[in-house]
Amino acid sequence: MLPFDNMITLDQESSTPIFQQIAFSLSQLIREGKLARGSRLPGSRILAAQLGVHRKTIVAALEELEAQGWLETVASVGTFVSQKLPEIKVKSLGEATQIKTPKATPGYDFQADPQLQKPLISNHQGLRFDDGLPDVRLAPLDSLARYYRQRLLLGQKRQSLGYASTQGDWGLRQTLCNYLRESRGLCLNEDNIMITRGSIQAFHLASNCLLKPGSVVGVGEIGYFTGRLIFAQTGAQLQGLKIDKNGLDPNAVEDLCKKMPLRMLYLTPHHHYPTTVSMPAGRRLELLELARRYRFCILEDDYDFDFHYDSNPILPLSSEDNNGLTLYVGSFCKAISPALRLGYAVGPSEVIRAMSDLRRIVDRQGEQVFEAAFADFLKAGELRRHLKKAVKTYEKRRNTLAEMLKTELGDCLNFEIPTGGMAIWGQFDPGISLLDLAKKAAEQGMNINNGSNYHWQEKPLNAARLGFASINEAEMAQGIGVLSKLIKLS
Amino acid sequence: MLPFDNMITLDQESSTPIFQQIAFSLSQLIREGKLARGSRLPGSRILAAQLGVHRKTIVAALEELEAQGWLETVASVGTFVSQKLPEIKVKSLGEATQIKTPKATPGYDFQADPQLQKPLISNHQGLRFDDGLPDVRLAPLDSLARYYRQRLLLGQKRQSLGYASTQGDWGLRQTLCNYLRESRGLCLNEDNIMITRGSIQAFHLASNCLLKPGSVVGVGEIGYFTGRLIFAQTGAQLQGLKIDKNGLDPNAVEDLCKKMPLRMLYLTPHHHYPTTVSMPAGRRLELLELARRYRFCILEDDYDFDFHYDSNPILPLSSEDNNGLTLYVGSFCKAISPALRLGYAVGPSEVIRAMSDLRRIVDRQGEQVFEAAFADFLKAGELRRHLKKAVKTYEKRRNTLAEMLKTELGDCLNFEIPTGGMAIWGQFDPGISLLDLAKKAAEQGMNINNGSNYHWQEKPLNAARLGFASINEAEMAQGIGVLSKLIKLS
Repeated sequence: MLPFDNMITLDQESSTPIFQQIAFSLSQLIREGKLARGSRLPGSRILAAQLGVHRKTIVAALEELEAQGWLETVASVGTFVSQKLPEIKVKSLGEATQIKTPKATPGYDFQADPQLQKPLISNHQGLRFDDGLPDVRLAPLDSLARYYRQRLLLGQKRQSLGYASTQGDWGLRQTLCNYLRESRGLCLNEDNIMITRGSIQAFHLASNCLLKPGSVVGVGEIGYFTGRLIFAQTGAQLQGLKIDKNGLDPNAVEDLCKKMPLRMLYLTPHHHYPTTVSMPAGRRLELLELARRYRFCILEDDYDFDFHYDSNPILPLSSEDNNGLTLYVGSFCKAISPALRLGYAVGPSEVIRAMSDLRRIVDRQGEQVFEAAFADFLKAGELRRHLKKAVKTYEKRRNTLAEMLKTELGDCLNFEIPTGGMAIWGQFDPGISLLDLAKKAAEQGMNINNGSNYHWQEKPLNAARLGFASINEAEMAQGIGVLSKLIKLS
Repeated sequence: MLPFDNMITLDQESSTPIFQQIAFSLSQLIREGKLARGSRLPGSRILAAQLGVHRKTIVAALEELEAQGWLETVASVGTFVSQKLPEIKVKSLGEATQIKTPKATPGYDFQADPQLQKPLISNHQGLRFDDGLPDVRLAPLDSLARYYRQRLLLGQKRQSLGYASTQGDWGLRQTLCNYLRESRGLCLNEDNIMITRGSIQAFHLASNCLLKPGSVVGVGEIGYFTGRLIFAQTGAQLQGLKIDKNGLDPNAVEDLCKKMPLRMLYLTPHHHYPTTVSMPAGRRLELLELARRYRFCILEDDYDFDFHYDSNPILPLSSEDNNGLTLYVGSFCKAISPALRLGYAVGPSEVIRAMSDLRRIVDRQGEQVFEAAFADFLKAGELRRHLKKAVKTYEKRRNTLAEMLKTELGDCLNFEIPTGGMAIWGQFDPGISLLDLAKKAAEQGMNINNGSNYHWQEKPLNAARLGFASINEAEMAQGIGVLSKLIKLS
């Protein structure tokens, strides 16, 4: 008989009951081939004596293993290792212990997509000029948390915390309809809008509904890198379009349409990403007219609509669209925090329906509790109040940063003061390598984008977005201090 | 001069400032072509008099429109509709008012995918036998809400509410590593796991990393419909495999492997969906051996691991996998609520890394605040306590429902008592049409699945999952009352 007392070690301290420890050890012995298929186990009394446990404990363990299919009991004969198990050769201890190494490489052929491994824009808590992120310190998150709790408990009481609409919470859709009518002049009803987890999900769903391999997508050159990745993943063919001081050039679009069938045009008209330039009304109407004539979809990314300082926000193209040509995508990630993934897509109900249907196989549904809580937050006017305060603060910060940059780095940094948004587009003199500068700054614990995230050629731009929204005057001064010192040294 | 007082109506009650109302109305007149390109506007004094507002209000409106590119001011000459605007023909009133209809059909060619329009399993609050959903009334959601608030405010204080890891909160990954080692015998570290929004997102990411058009995926016939949709979307070729009382048959898998290169095998071994049968240890080892030999990936869906009654939960195949062959997918949707989208995928770090990289273009990242809160919830042992209570309750409910079904519907309903899970698989006699029964029940406000959600042929099964977890004895009795009455009537 096998020396079970040597082969099975029990841990009296462990949270796992003894009978389970015994069951697991026995199944291990079977796995490792030390207990062969069909071999008979000693009686429960003998095992109990060997392992120094009560017989009931052994019986429980054996019943467990029988229920799991490891053992078979033949009445009044005994307990055997199941004949139904595949034959297992005794493994060397080496192999047996291998069972306990986490795996890096799969046991099947696998190739990762290098495109998706490019660095991400992430946020840094320390000294920084970020990509143009909000100052989360300003947001009324405490009251948002209160609404969340209320909705969670209400949902529990009503047993409504289950599978919900893939299109998003109906109450939030309804609230957003009013909000978007008033704030953006959009014309929509609840069927024209779906709630997404930020803009990225809206782009992903839209692309997978509208694009197929070979579809032509027009994107700004330069432009939003992640957007380009999303479109490219569908197998679409991307065409770069010229960006000037008024944003994307309609003539470039028309030339493209004459060459090939354009399926989708990606736009950030309010404040072009990354250059922050605004597109005037004239161009907007021209692009809509082109879309109507050549029957393509305009994917309008209005990521920072709320933050416009020199005039009220310019109404989106979608507010002029009377032909179902635009998909308007907005988000609260810039208004409150990128960590709270909440955005929406507005378009023809047929397309919104298809995007919602697609979602069932992407992540099934959004965060229904948070969505309902956010509707309460909107209805209570908390977002409006917050934005009013934030816009004032960010406008001041924009002006402050612009002044500081002019005085401290004016001789080596060129920029226009943006009419809105959350970042200044800073172009460094050829004499300065932003790539080196960012590297050196990082060594001093300061983060600044090195210009490699804004386009897709190999050579990085010598320009970066200098976010002013998330940092106060003192933090700006510190950051600029580091940069100017490094520049003088170089 | 145009009769602006007739063409512009101002709403003193509106929350929109008067100057914005004027600006919007003027831009409308331009859009509609009533104010032609290059035409001159009356002086601000005259307009102010006509509209009965202060001159400053008019000036603000005109400045607004100039900033947006609608107007141009020529010093000491006057204000004109911008020459840069495209020429617009005056629209009939009909067209002009069209601007205010939400659109259903896009202005470009569009075809929705009918596959995705099939009915979804959703949850009903009223009288029901659901698909096997948890009773959210049991879950300690109040304390979960408390952890959420703490994490939200902490994140605000630390300014860490921004763009985060696409792989999920590090703290939760770490906590889950321990949790999964202890509860499921998995062998993993933080690189082997990613947090997802429920199982569906894990399947979606895995499929898009592992499958390409033509890849062969083995699925149970019958099986999980949504899984099948996810695999099919990648262009993969699905092969149905026989299910018997021990789950998926390894011989069927081997036959398939001999015919064509199998890329992925989708399994729900613990309690097969929908039939609830458990796969014994022997078959698990056989399938792992087949995966090793034929180099395919086993996608192990362990959606209801926690709920096993006749023995302790059977350890997943992944706990036996020493060759990086399995992708183990778990979720807390069944443990707490489908509304809280939280799941995870465990596998070789290379694959997990690729899935996380892909996520950047799907929804960028998970709910970092909720993830951190859930880690606190786990560490505090709240999930363990909750599950202990839930398992006891659900086991009682399983037994109760089984007895009731036997006594009330025993003559027309066949079922085996499942060893675990949250539903009984009920097969109705051919004499009864479940399709009609479900329809009639719905008319009486009671929901029961009509058998069309479990497979992909056109003819629905005459069988359904009868969920016992989310309803108490009284609710069961009511539900069965409705069914037996309807059956007697037919």
